[in-house]
Amino acid sequence: MSRSSKSPFLSVTPLGGVGEIGSNCTVFENDDHLVIVDYGILFPYEDFFDINYLIASLDSIKDTTKKVSIFITHGHEDHIGAIAHINKVFPNAEIHAPKFAEKLIRKKLQMAGQTAKVSIYNESTVLDFGNFEVHPVAVTHSIPDTFGLIVKGKNGNFSILFISDFKFDLNPLYERPFNTEKIQELFAQSRKNICMIDSTNILNEGKTLSERDLVEDLAELVRAPNRLFVTLFSSNIHRLRTLMTLAQDHGKRIVPIGRSVRHYLESANECGLFGEEFAVLRDEKEIQDPGSKKNIYILTGCQGDHFGALRRVACGEHKFLEPGAEDVFVFSSKPIPGNESKIYRIYNQLTEKGASIITYKDKRVHASGHPGQEDLKQLYNAIKPDVIIPIHGESYFLRKHLDFIERNTSSQGLWLQNFHRLALSSEGEISSQAFEPEQPTIIHGKALVIEREAISKRRRMACNGVCFISLDRKTRKVELTTSGLPQFLEKDIEKITNLIKGQLNKKLMEKDVEAISEEVRIFARNLFNNFLGYKPVTVVHVL
Amino acid sequence: MSRSSKSPFLSVTPLGGVGEIGSNCTVFENDDHLVIVDYGILFPYEDFFDINYLIASLDSIKDTTKKVSIFITHGHEDHIGAIAHINKVFPNAEIHAPKFAEKLIRKKLQMAGQTAKVSIYNESTVLDFGNFEVHPVAVTHSIPDTFGLIVKGKNGNFSILFISDFKFDLNPLYERPFNTEKIQELFAQSRKNICMIDSTNILNEGKTLSERDLVEDLAELVRAPNRLFVTLFSSNIHRLRTLMTLAQDHGKRIVPIGRSVRHYLESANECGLFGEEFAVLRDEKEIQDPGSKKNIYILTGCQGDHFGALRRVACGEHKFLEPGAEDVFVFSSKPIPGNESKIYRIYNQLTEKGASIITYKDKRVHASGHPGQEDLKQLYNAIKPDVIIPIHGESYFLRKHLDFIERNTSSQGLWLQNFHRLALSSEGEISSQAFEPEQPTIIHGKALVIEREAISKRRRMACNGVCFISLDRKTRKVELTTSGLPQFLEKDIEKITNLIKGQLNKKLMEKDVEAISEEVRIFARNLFNNFLGYKPVTVVHVL
Repeated sequence: MSRSSKSPFLSVTPLGGVGEIGSNCTVFENDDHLVIVDYGILFPYEDFFDINYLIASLDSIKDTTKKVSIFITHGHEDHIGAIAHINKVFPNAEIHAPKFAEKLIRKKLQMAGQTAKVSIYNESTVLDFGNFEVHPVAVTHSIPDTFGLIVKGKNGNFSILFISDFKFDLNPLYERPFNTEKIQELFAQSRKNICMIDSTNILNEGKTLSERDLVEDLAELVRAPNRLFVTLFSSNIHRLRTLMTLAQDHGKRIVPIGRSVRHYLESANECGLFGEEFAVLRDEKEIQDPGSKKNIYILTGCQGDHFGALRRVACGEHKFLEPGAEDVFVFSSKPIPGNESKIYRIYNQLTEKGASIITYKDKRVHASGHPGQEDLKQLYNAIKPDVIIPIHGESYFLRKHLDFIERNTSSQGLWLQNFHRLALSSEGEISSQAFEPEQPTIIHGKALVIEREAISKRRRMACNGVCFISLDRKTRKVELTTSGLPQFLEKDIEKITNLIKGQLNKKLMEKDVEAISEEVRIFARNLFNNFLGYKPVTVVHVL
Repeated sequence: MSRSSKSPFLSVTPLGGVGEIGSNCTVFENDDHLVIVDYGILFPYEDFFDINYLIASLDSIKDTTKKVSIFITHGHEDHIGAIAHINKVFPNAEIHAPKFAEKLIRKKLQMAGQTAKVSIYNESTVLDFGNFEVHPVAVTHSIPDTFGLIVKGKNGNFSILFISDFKFDLNPLYERPFNTEKIQELFAQSRKNICMIDSTNILNEGKTLSERDLVEDLAELVRAPNRLFVTLFSSNIHRLRTLMTLAQDHGKRIVPIGRSVRHYLESANECGLFGEEFAVLRDEKEIQDPGSKKNIYILTGCQGDHFGALRRVACGEHKFLEPGAEDVFVFSSKPIPGNESKIYRIYNQLTEKGASIITYKDKRVHASGHPGQEDLKQLYNAIKPDVIIPIHGESYFLRKHLDFIERNTSSQGLWLQNFHRLALSSEGEISSQAFEPEQPTIIHGKALVIEREAISKRRRMACNGVCFISLDRKTRKVELTTSGLPQFLEKDIEKITNLIKGQLNKKLMEKDVEAISEEVRIFARNLFNNFLGYKPVTVVHVL
């Protein structure tokens, strides 16, 4: 990223997450330091065949000579999912993370065969970066140990409160409440106060539920004489703890099904996040009576994911769990836009097998982790910022958040997007500059970069099928194989092959290999077009 | 479909649309007649790469010797979309359709180069099928000229009211109201009355809006001094008429963009469905001042469709329309589950260009065509059926509709799904039998059947890329081409080719072609797996 001549006191540049939900990454920078907040993944809009995800491009900062630090706000995948990737780019950067995220990060790095310096911070930590300090602020969210941060100019001219994920819960079930006092205290020490705040739920008018609000309805479901299946985000340790406590109260046992829920349960337990309720957990291998009404199954795949336990159980692919008329399936989560049709498909399969379905529309079985309009009103009212910058949201949400700020606060709203650089002068004056956004990197499988062109080719093959032709220049023998074409074509393959052979006249065969292959390719594609009305991707080898 | 020995007075079998939304097709059958109600298309759950749709399988009835008639309730694609297909299977069947649907069907058959006997029915029509009659009933819906039907046993023992699509609008803007009286009258003549009723909106608690309810907010938007873009279902002639009338009132002009909206406007005009407001229409080619605030553009693609005008305009691909800060985009429709992410993408693109967005959440700009719970209560209360069978919905909705019936009516609810056959005795006794459902047929492109296996192959190629290898048995020359693989692999292609060459020892080359090709295929796939962590679809030709 090119820089203007005079470098500002501090600059803030989101590289991901501001204009989309996911792949969060924001850079705070002064003359000596580069502090990168979060580095997560995003599942793409366009269906990249369910196998790929996007991460923010680091090209604009990767050659920096400044000291790089990484600050992690919490352990969700859209904040730490690509930690191994950024650790490879900045192997000397120290990673600062809260306790639970640190545990998850260490396991990720271990899986990738990497090492890194990871330090645990807590609310009393202050990190020093020359002309500014970073103060973590405890917030409430759907995963334990979530923090915002206050970036405080040491000259007392400004503070920036940055909270990408939170809800404003002052009476949470298991954690310390949202720490408004700390923000008020630090804001009181600065002449200008700026907020960068979560826009995920800006379309929701009300107040986001607390995990506490779910206990009554979940208790009723646990108490009932049914076999219970609950699907939720595996990282929602609070919700899992509620279910475990209720199971304990009612003499039931919890059986987690699916790798990710076992992984999170284990990690949370290692961090001391559970009490004696942990004893209700049973490994699926221990279960002798899978049909028992004492069993509460926790299923991964609440978004209908192809490899999740929920889908496998619903469609009858699970090895010992078969849904039936007396089973109750609780969807303790909400569909993420784009996943509705996959989830409805599961509703249908369960219904056809006679099982009952409880969603957040039927009972209080889900609480979001993000602030509704009422949460935002309460927060803004409590801390009265001078400037509010909507972040963590698609562009449409950021705009709605700005409209909301105008209607409901006396703060100045400011529009920011990925690769817009906000520059703060030492007096706390704000200016902003839009750089050409860099396309996020596509990752296929474990950690392989794949280009947009390769994805386009895959889509072309998926839409039109494939034809592979090889021919012997001397004998004029032709082999032809198709893949992904309709069956009725089979009977015409010989005819098509012969028509191609007919093209291989002396004049053509005297040309060079490239020319022969291109002519045959065009001829074959047009032939297929006559049969199909479309042209398969065609490759010709001339031997 | 196998039949029980004694044939019933009448049987009813849905072949599509009961358990899913789309590909509607229901068969009413007695000893002599087979009346097929509707034959539509369904866009599949699984992403078949945006190019395919499903139609109900006709295998169970295609060999019938009975007289086949086709009854069309209205002109939506999920009811007439595959008319050319069924016309090929039953070329002698007479098609009965209301006026507007008849116009649309004729154009479809013409496009397919087919002819058929199509008769227009109206509310006074009675169709005779031996022991039962069909009486069309005018209902209200989001396309003009929509009908339900009453299948009335001539012996007076029962009537079946079948309405797959409707809302209960007693004061519509342009059409005759929902005809409750006719139902009451015919029900009074039968000893047992059965309903088969729309479940699409069963999750909505309230009353569905009338088109009349939209006039005020749409008028405000048309009046405002902005360039206006409205996207909606092209078949919503009522809504288009409202917009045209408002444009006329406020001295503006309507410019339809996209083929399907022009097609529907033209067809509706040919049916006399517009008045003098039709004069406000302008062809896009006539527009000299595309930026004028007098222009109201009607855009196809309200569901975010790739080829729709909305997406093209939003992402800057349209030849003369570029969204800007003073433009207002009205989404006069609601996202169909599964399309949310495509539509949000468009919201984001428009927001980034500064345009304003109005959705049904902001103003009254959309009314559904299907009954909410309040509509159903009013209908059931007015006609007091003995039995209600939920149809036109996914299984989950059918179940919710049954729960609703139990809570709100004294009628008996009955569970029915595709390929369940409902048999009515001459006394009106109901029994039901579930047949093995036949998989719907997948159609690719215009009218070509494509098999599930071919779709699976396409998906495999899309997920793993492709590798083609051809080798000359004598010279041991090897050619290798990949498609859809990451770029970093390019530098290793020569190495991979040489490793394959190294495999072609004398012993292998003495085997038959199949064996050589299979060994090379497995070797190559394992090689790629080492580089990529996955195995591309690989084809080997041995010349």
